[in-house]
Amino acid sequence: MTDLKQKIRAAVRDDLAAIEQALVENLHPQFDLVQKVAGHLLFAGGKRLRPLLMLLAARLCGYRGPEPAANFAVIFEYLHAATLIHDDVVDGASLRRGQTAAHQVWDPPTAVLTGDFLLARSLSQAVLTGRTEVMGVIAGITEQMSQGEIRQLSHKGDLTLTEERYLEVIRCKTAVLFQGACRVGALISDASRERQSALDDYGFHLGMAFQMADDLLDYTQESEVLGKAAGADLREGKLTLPVIRALQAAEGPDKEWMTALIRRGDFSSEAFGALVALLARYGGLDYTRRRAAEHVRQAKEALRIFGAAPAVEVLHDISDYAWSRVS
Amino acid sequence: MTDLKQKIRAAVRDDLAAIEQALVENLHPQFDLVQKVAGHLLFAGGKRLRPLLMLLAARLCGYRGPEPAANFAVIFEYLHAATLIHDDVVDGASLRRGQTAAHQVWDPPTAVLTGDFLLARSLSQAVLTGRTEVMGVIAGITEQMSQGEIRQLSHKGDLTLTEERYLEVIRCKTAVLFQGACRVGALISDASRERQSALDDYGFHLGMAFQMADDLLDYTQESEVLGKAAGADLREGKLTLPVIRALQAAEGPDKEWMTALIRRGDFSSEAFGALVALLARYGGLDYTRRRAAEHVRQAKEALRIFGAAPAVEVLHDISDYAWSRVS
Repeated sequence: MTDLKQKIRAAVRDDLAAIEQALVENLHPQFDLVQKVAGHLLFAGGKRLRPLLMLLAARLCGYRGPEPAANFAVIFEYLHAATLIHDDVVDGASLRRGQTAAHQVWDPPTAVLTGDFLLARSLSQAVLTGRTEVMGVIAGITEQMSQGEIRQLSHKGDLTLTEERYLEVIRCKTAVLFQGACRVGALISDASRERQSALDDYGFHLGMAFQMADDLLDYTQESEVLGKAAGADLREGKLTLPVIRALQAAEGPDKEWMTALIRRGDFSSEAFGALVALLARYGGLDYTRRRAAEHVRQAKEALRIFGAAPAVEVLHDISDYAWSRVS
Repeated sequence: MTDLKQKIRAAVRDDLAAIEQALVENLHPQFDLVQKVAGHLLFAGGKRLRPLLMLLAARLCGYRGPEPAANFAVIFEYLHAATLIHDDVVDGASLRRGQTAAHQVWDPPTAVLTGDFLLARSLSQAVLTGRTEVMGVIAGITEQMSQGEIRQLSHKGDLTLTEERYLEVIRCKTAVLFQGACRVGALISDASRERQSALDDYGFHLGMAFQMADDLLDYTQESEVLGKAAGADLREGKLTLPVIRALQAAEGPDKEWMTALIRRGDFSSEAFGALVALLARYGGLDYTRRRAAEHVRQAKEALRIFGAAPAVEVLHDISDYAWSRVS
């Protein structure tokens, strides 16, 4: 484990414990099967980053409500788990968090319905805040995420996908959830509009950096570390920033070779290695790294109005960590 | 069209027009594809029964809010459409509302995500009520429905399914939505607890009667009228009340024959005809009809506190219609 990761873990140990406990206590399914399927992914050791962001945002804004904030933080893990389960069905992915995806352990129908259940659990927890603004954020996130995934699907294998469209897709599918988690932390704490907006910005930029890093890791990291197959995005026809940028810069036989490989959508590990070398040569990897770093910088910048506070330091560390994975 | 259906249609002509308009106006998807996929089922001529129930309940309780009630009524059609789309993916159904199901026109991934989008639209409209109680009802409906479907799935081909379990499944998958639509009509109108509860009861009993009638029609009506294949439930391994009851009463070779056919899950139209004859002989059809009639009676009974009002008459007619389809 990196030093930074250890530092963050130490700083939020109690928060993570509170989140784990709240995730178990608030799931209450009526049937054993629902418990098993929902728990399969939910308790397979995710980073709990989204609920953690909500907790930290709430702390930064001086949350003093009667309900433990962790019971609201779970909104974002349930919602995240719901979308992961649906996305795995959608992508036909085999591995998730290092284990067989739910739709393969059980079947796609059970996975779809369990995703629906987790989404509903997320809503029910949001209702407990007693704030329609919070409900609005959750509804908005769900709308954006489903549309982002549909747009991504419609661009499957699309070699003309632009950087602009890519940015819109990752905003919808990833950044809005980070953003929403931070905003809800501010909302339940009756924070000023300025503080709400600052946390919203932080979440947005962190989410963008995070997804760019993920998209880069799909080319630069081993399957064992990823917890899923490397090069999976391209096999699924998903063009991400490293490829979009490299395709833009490449010419001649290199461009033709890359195009042919992407069209085929299936490749040996040698061919994959050669592709990664081309992505590096044509600047796709570096460019993605730089764009992610810029979002990290903006994320930190957004928090300036809070001055120095322990929670600000952790949020800084989290954004540095998002980038350190690919630096 | 039956006289009763014509009478209802005439009484609610303006309401149905308002619902149709609100369904179009409130969908606002960001992408054309989402519009197409969501619109495919949404605008294929459903009965709009659930939004209509909300409108009628609101009228009965003297709704006077600034927002046209139809903008809240669509909550229940979007939610219904979302679950239909997911259920068709889950069941692998080919036909819906007389046309090819969305997951076959496009693909299952697009259908899953469009269902998620419609669910999210439903929530966003619910947020507009500004009432967390309404959000709680919607979250609760979604939890119950997904769990009901999962339970139904887990009972696929289960010859030991009891009537009690069946009733729990249809409560979750159908009655809670009818119930929720009626309750929300009361909530947005600031109705007394007594009136809320009466409308809740009406919705519950109507929903139970409606699903029982649907389950019966699957054995007694032609595919063209159903808008989907007759005998579909059994082909999907879904045991419903007519079969549960007949299996309970049958003995000897008849019972063995029925059991074998259900286990096989595939049958000729002759075999299906013979099965329906056995369901009739062993009282499965009549029993289901009687149970549905009893729920219709209780639905009407629940409305007694409202006295005589035009909306009460329509609600009575709707419950009579639910039963008239199978009487």
